[in-house]
Amino acid sequence: MIFSSIMNVKKIKNIKIEIVSAGEGTSRRVLISSDEAPNFAMRKFIIEPGGGIPAHTNTVEHEQYVLSGSATIGIGDEVYEVEKDDVVYIPAGVPHWYEVRSEESFEFLCMVPNGDDKIELVKKS
Amino acid sequence: MIFSSIMNVKKIKNIKIEIVSAGEGTSRRVLISSDEAPNFAMRKFIIEPGGGIPAHTNTVEHEQYVLSGSATIGIGDEVYEVEKDDVVYIPAGVPHWYEVRSEESFEFLCMVPNGDDKIELVKKS
Repeated sequence: MIFSSIMNVKKIKNIKIEIVSAGEGTSRRVLISSDEAPNFAMRKFIIEPGGGIPAHTNTVEHEQYVLSGSATIGIGDEVYEVEKDDVVYIPAGVPHWYEVRSEESFEFLCMVPNGDDKIELVKKS
Repeated sequence: MIFSSIMNVKKIKNIKIEIVSAGEGTSRRVLISSDEAPNFAMRKFIIEPGGGIPAHTNTVEHEQYVLSGSATIGIGDEVYEVEKDDVVYIPAGVPHWYEVRSEESFEFLCMVPNGDDKIELVKKS
């Protein structure tokens, strides 16, 4: 497999913002894509106040780091209040959701392994 | 392979700080270790003003995100000034180094794939 060349340093403002249609008030930048690196991708998500992402599962795990703001998140049966500098791990297959109830945007990095990911919405019980 | 269970959310202040002996004024926290996740690890490095990490190679790639401060870094033959919110990619095998010339600590996340990594110091030309 041949990976496209990547710039060694990227300014975040030069990276395109995409709307995340599964969420509300949610957008993301793909900082390092699965085409640019051999093992995992780095994305930055922004969820605006009042926004969120409904409960869903992925077939891959997420490793996340909160950059700013705060949010209420669900992972499996647990609910957490997370804020800047918190570290979040979501195992593959575990339902998770996000709600931003504060007045500041919630920004976090989300790293995922390369390879196919299947996303499925689930009902929040 | 069985991975130890990981807490879904960690407060960074509860994670042990380790000195990075290869660097000067450099410490790190392992936020998600290779024992806690199946594919890659997340670490946070702090380099104090005047500190740095000399030129070295790794056998694995690095995906990095600058959280605060600024630094002069070398990747291969290129030298970059990096700051908060910059994204840095260091391919496997490419010499790289860090120098913090500003008056603020330089903090960054560094993700690496699981598996053996061999670190070799190299002469800065």
